[in-house]
Amino acid sequence: MEKKMSSSVVTKVLYENLRNFLKDKKRIPHIVDISIGDDFGGEMYAKMKKKRIESETGIGFQSVHFSDIELGSLINYIIDLNKNEEVDGIMLQLPLPGELHQFERMILDFIDPSKDVDGLTSASLGNLASGKDGFVACTSLGIETLLKSYDVRLDGSLVGIINRTNVVGKPLAEILLRDNATPIIMHSHTRHLSDVTKNCDILVAALNRREKITSEYVKDGAVVIDVGVHKNEEGKTVGDVLYDDVYPKASLITPPTGAVGPMTICMLAYNATKSCYGSPVNELLDEGIEEAKKLILK
Amino acid sequence: MEKKMSSSVVTKVLYENLRNFLKDKKRIPHIVDISIGDDFGGEMYAKMKKKRIESETGIGFQSVHFSDIELGSLINYIIDLNKNEEVDGIMLQLPLPGELHQFERMILDFIDPSKDVDGLTSASLGNLASGKDGFVACTSLGIETLLKSYDVRLDGSLVGIINRTNVVGKPLAEILLRDNATPIIMHSHTRHLSDVTKNCDILVAALNRREKITSEYVKDGAVVIDVGVHKNEEGKTVGDVLYDDVYPKASLITPPTGAVGPMTICMLAYNATKSCYGSPVNELLDEGIEEAKKLILK
Repeated sequence: MEKKMSSSVVTKVLYENLRNFLKDKKRIPHIVDISIGDDFGGEMYAKMKKKRIESETGIGFQSVHFSDIELGSLINYIIDLNKNEEVDGIMLQLPLPGELHQFERMILDFIDPSKDVDGLTSASLGNLASGKDGFVACTSLGIETLLKSYDVRLDGSLVGIINRTNVVGKPLAEILLRDNATPIIMHSHTRHLSDVTKNCDILVAALNRREKITSEYVKDGAVVIDVGVHKNEEGKTVGDVLYDDVYPKASLITPPTGAVGPMTICMLAYNATKSCYGSPVNELLDEGIEEAKKLILK
Repeated sequence: MEKKMSSSVVTKVLYENLRNFLKDKKRIPHIVDISIGDDFGGEMYAKMKKKRIESETGIGFQSVHFSDIELGSLINYIIDLNKNEEVDGIMLQLPLPGELHQFERMILDFIDPSKDVDGLTSASLGNLASGKDGFVACTSLGIETLLKSYDVRLDGSLVGIINRTNVVGKPLAEILLRDNATPIIMHSHTRHLSDVTKNCDILVAALNRREKITSEYVKDGAVVIDVGVHKNEEGKTVGDVLYDDVYPKASLITPPTGAVGPMTICMLAYNATKSCYGSPVNELLDEGIEEAKKLILK
């Protein structure tokens, strides 16, 4: 088996299964993705998400951009989306700019938890912690799905996660605990970072520091997942991991592109479908993972 | 400074502050503690809680025991307590017996989050994860309070937590992350447990295995918190930590009694008061910690 973990086989299977699931359905999910502010840097990514999700699944992805919006208007806009029966998923791109920033948590929590396809509301985080079924942040779910598809042993494994946000690190720790892994949640205050990381069977780098994770940080034979996305001086996309340096030491490693990003988008499609069709979509995902695993291990 | 971490100085200060806070208040908090089943083993502990809280603070602690109760009746009983303006805190002792066990999560989530002094509802867990103010499980809060009172450095420290429940391990990891610690959440599936624990600056043993944690599991100079409570063959109370063996290696260590248990009860009194009087009670706790710290470091 190749060392490089790519999302391509996994997403191919998962999108195909989703298309099959949706093909005889009367109702196709619809996502509304809200972004605010002229400095919003995620436009490229939003376009990519839209293109990928729509072309792969037929799920509707509507990008709504406000260059500026007042708190009250934004909340009313969200409430209208909550009520709108045509809308299954509501996403709000963070960080919010200017005055809105300080109210981020309160604004997010106006999103109806049943439409919270990003899994960021307090209610979704609570359901995750308490073991209720609900929405899990797409990046975390994508990483777990990728690991399972590559048949990486999670049970009993020490998993280092360098990120403590609700978008990546904490929900990932929660779902990996369900898989009987032992998560360590690291961050900028962690002392002797490499001493900790080099004990980890699996290392998830989402520290947002360009090529910071060198081979010194990595245990021999570790599985390395790179969540970071940066451009280097030559304009090439690189990650939080110094890929060529870590590659020889890792047993499996994701490249800077074509792994976590596409997995995240694919999970958004699954979450939106789950918003429409409920828990059978969990089983659809599990089945897809099993199929992908067979293809990858072949 | 002595190596033995005891709750006595801390709870003395915290109860005194709470009495002062409550003395000119018209309304004194009232807790209802529900236990179910004839095999319920926590009766002794419930009595101790009642006695301690009532004598130290004047807060009302009402134990309600059902030898058996139907699901619907239990839920109605909880709903009545939710509506009852005389009741500030509702606790439900787990595990629930028999048929009720499988509905534990759903039953817990009937507790009004504003009265959830045990911090166990999905809503409370969600507020904790999302950074909203709310109730945190008393044992976790008690451990954090004890560590802070003994001026243990949390920022940057590696904290091993051997427990992944919502009662101890996971909420503890959440609040320690706020303190900039690096939590590792361990459990029965963790491979090479002692290899992991002996790297930890702080070790919280809540694995519920009598005197399992020997000096081999402990880093030199580590702070060791023992949550376990067991009786040994001679009827003596012992913990998850083999105290005499670990003592020489630790820089601070809690004894099997007189530390985590009393801290937990004290935090329940604070949570019940917070249910009545809101976030100023957080500040009251912080002030108490600072006072206790001065006395302990003296």
